[in-house]
Amino acid sequence: MGQTAKADPLILRELELICGKPFVSARDIDRISYSRDAFPLTFKWIREGRIAYLPDYIVWPENAEQIREIVMLCNREKIPYLPYGGGSGIVGAALPTRGGIVIDMKRMNRIVSVDEVSLTATVQAGAVGQHFEEELNHLGYTCGHYPQSIRQSTVGGWVAHCGVGTYSTKYGKMDDLVVAMKVVLPDGRMLETRNVPKASTGPNLNHLFIGSEGALGIIAEVTVKIFPLPEEERFLSYDFPNFAAGIEAVRTVMRHDIRPAVVRLYDEKEARHHFSDLLGESRCVLLFGAAGRKCNVEHETAIIDRLAREAGGVPLGSVIGEKWKERRFSTAGLCNILRQRGGIADALEVTGTWSNLHRIYEAMKGAMEAVINGRGEVFGHLSHAYHTGANLYMIFHAHEETDEGAESLYYEIMEAAFDACQTLGGALSHHHGVGIGKARWMRRELGSGLDLLRSLKTAIDPDRLLNQGKLGI
Amino acid sequence: MGQTAKADPLILRELELICGKPFVSARDIDRISYSRDAFPLTFKWIREGRIAYLPDYIVWPENAEQIREIVMLCNREKIPYLPYGGGSGIVGAALPTRGGIVIDMKRMNRIVSVDEVSLTATVQAGAVGQHFEEELNHLGYTCGHYPQSIRQSTVGGWVAHCGVGTYSTKYGKMDDLVVAMKVVLPDGRMLETRNVPKASTGPNLNHLFIGSEGALGIIAEVTVKIFPLPEEERFLSYDFPNFAAGIEAVRTVMRHDIRPAVVRLYDEKEARHHFSDLLGESRCVLLFGAAGRKCNVEHETAIIDRLAREAGGVPLGSVIGEKWKERRFSTAGLCNILRQRGGIADALEVTGTWSNLHRIYEAMKGAMEAVINGRGEVFGHLSHAYHTGANLYMIFHAHEETDEGAESLYYEIMEAAFDACQTLGGALSHHHGVGIGKARWMRRELGSGLDLLRSLKTAIDPDRLLNQGKLGI
Repeated sequence: MGQTAKADPLILRELELICGKPFVSARDIDRISYSRDAFPLTFKWIREGRIAYLPDYIVWPENAEQIREIVMLCNREKIPYLPYGGGSGIVGAALPTRGGIVIDMKRMNRIVSVDEVSLTATVQAGAVGQHFEEELNHLGYTCGHYPQSIRQSTVGGWVAHCGVGTYSTKYGKMDDLVVAMKVVLPDGRMLETRNVPKASTGPNLNHLFIGSEGALGIIAEVTVKIFPLPEEERFLSYDFPNFAAGIEAVRTVMRHDIRPAVVRLYDEKEARHHFSDLLGESRCVLLFGAAGRKCNVEHETAIIDRLAREAGGVPLGSVIGEKWKERRFSTAGLCNILRQRGGIADALEVTGTWSNLHRIYEAMKGAMEAVINGRGEVFGHLSHAYHTGANLYMIFHAHEETDEGAESLYYEIMEAAFDACQTLGGALSHHHGVGIGKARWMRRELGSGLDLLRSLKTAIDPDRLLNQGKLGI
Repeated sequence: MGQTAKADPLILRELELICGKPFVSARDIDRISYSRDAFPLTFKWIREGRIAYLPDYIVWPENAEQIREIVMLCNREKIPYLPYGGGSGIVGAALPTRGGIVIDMKRMNRIVSVDEVSLTATVQAGAVGQHFEEELNHLGYTCGHYPQSIRQSTVGGWVAHCGVGTYSTKYGKMDDLVVAMKVVLPDGRMLETRNVPKASTGPNLNHLFIGSEGALGIIAEVTVKIFPLPEEERFLSYDFPNFAAGIEAVRTVMRHDIRPAVVRLYDEKEARHHFSDLLGESRCVLLFGAAGRKCNVEHETAIIDRLAREAGGVPLGSVIGEKWKERRFSTAGLCNILRQRGGIADALEVTGTWSNLHRIYEAMKGAMEAVINGRGEVFGHLSHAYHTGANLYMIFHAHEETDEGAESLYYEIMEAAFDACQTLGGALSHHHGVGIGKARWMRRELGSGLDLLRSLKTAIDPDRLLNQGKLGI
């Protein structure tokens, strides 16, 4: 395929001067490739032969200075632009809703430096998670962040969505892991925050960009904490009579200041879904995974085992954990449904405090099942535990006659689910983010905070060229 | 003393209608009382009979709605205003540098709610730390935050300065402890963030106000994590041949994922200063304090003891820790020097990564001693350890002939100290903040981040009425 009429030869030429000729494209094949990310509805659009959003140019810069020049060009010519990482986001935050220039970050994939004394690594934002992790592993370290998307997602995407990994209860979420960053601001200035453990020098500017979904600046480089590779890893799992009892067991472990890397509590349906080959009469399955120094793992697992049994858990051994670990990066289940005619599926990740977590689970499940009304099912698990509460994954899949019908059903389910969650004080998203998919619930989520966020956006990006239309701002 | 000419009777009347007559003052005695906080130079100004900054009105609102009305009045009449907590800040962030209205928060001192299941407490921002802690203690909990100022400082002040307490290595800094807040914004809107453990719904707006020193909004209410009272507390201390060896021991403990509540490493001079009665031939003293569940304290202290000995530490028993705990809230030493003619003193708290911490210590000490040149002394300690580095306290006292001379010397010492720190990549402040005292080093600290912060200030407070002139913005 050649170029469509949309590409301006002068702009194209200028982009080529900035990035080099091989690293600029206005070809249809590239434009179509970058018209999507992993937002569930893009699967439907592809099935329908529909391209909802088409960028005009794709560029592959190799350093922050090139990004800066692209941004200056966009400012001068008032061209919309946005960064693009692995395209694994499932809320549509990387969709080029205004056309313009897609800045693919993946050539910026270098580990800049590793400080083995201070346990930090500085990495370019376009590095794919798996590559970053493997390079650290060679040195005897881990980044501690293993999202399901690790083989596709980039470090910059992790930060921009405030992502979380499966071992987060020990290692933390991206807002705990980021130490410093280099950001290209919409006015072309370069912001570099200091690599210091903590500071009281005004509001921490890192947090303006963590979770900003690329709408406030382009993250070019990130310094994150790293960790010595665990000496030992041990899985424990327990059968619980119901979800509420399992939540209570997790809460008790957290209240004892024990932070296992992995904490996952599956409801009956999801437990059967994943582990039917391993379970007999089991009901809810609670899985813990401790990782780290041998002495700490021994201490943690001894306490966890005592607390879990006291809370009514019946030990299921370590095989559940090993099985989970083997399959943990697979997203085949949901993708397969989305590729079917009329199939729709998503995993909604919300958070609540310990006081309201079970109520949120019950309310969301009930509300979602009422909408689905026999056309699919809803199940869920708790994962990523914190001092004051946890994340709750509410997973659904359903089938309609047509893809169009599936799209309507999708929003009906979301509306019911988030209404239930927000009514009880839960948060709309724990780590997938907002993008375009959840933007309509942001007013209720943030209240006047949404106006505040919009005024920050206006202050930083007055022409609203950078990834405009995401986050509800 | 009566009223001076500055008070406008119409403004006064309106403030009285908002807060009630007893809770508004334009009397000189109150204006003078609120002309200072604990910024070291205010001690000099008092000695010299000089009032650098005088507010026009002081008000004592009792709820967020009253604050909102005061803010609306200030907007309409373009009157500068600022919040005032305990007045314990030592960077001058609570000084009324533009006159106007001082909003004393201390009538807003109520614990709104305690959630013993989710381990959070919601408290009005004007609550004095010690009172808040005592009320929690009655319920079997602690806030985990014990700054030296706890008997004077308020919860709102803790948040506004991103404060830290002496047990922070276990419990965290205020940016780790705050879960949600209610803020009166400069345009009179009320912002309430959600009490959820984590979220990915745009940048975390709490972080815009944590460390904002009251310049971006008035924090009216805060929800913080709380913790079950420790079952056990145990102190260990060790003699180390030099500061570098002590730093290495702390780093090793942190690298083993052990988080004792208290970590303090005193250099030889400060160790003698505090513990001369307890020490024989000791050199640097490293103190650890573990607190929490009995089983965890046993585990932690066993590992700490092994690691500290392996690192060359000679055990000094628990008495150093007990002595430290007894005296930990005293600030008499520095205050006494400041009250003397020509006396000047301060405690500079900077941070660095493990890689550069000892170099920062050496460089700051050398630079400060060179300026002081025999007129006083410099000593220091490490406290508040993190995964990637720690806080370093560089304490100095010196004497000049006059108070005026002391003031000049103060800035000369600061300039030398911060130049050394920033050159090596350290942060200007770990928890005291910036205020007016450190504003001149903010450009070097934040680079283009200072412009970004200024543009946020302009977006949020376009007339720059709220605590203008602080933070270098």
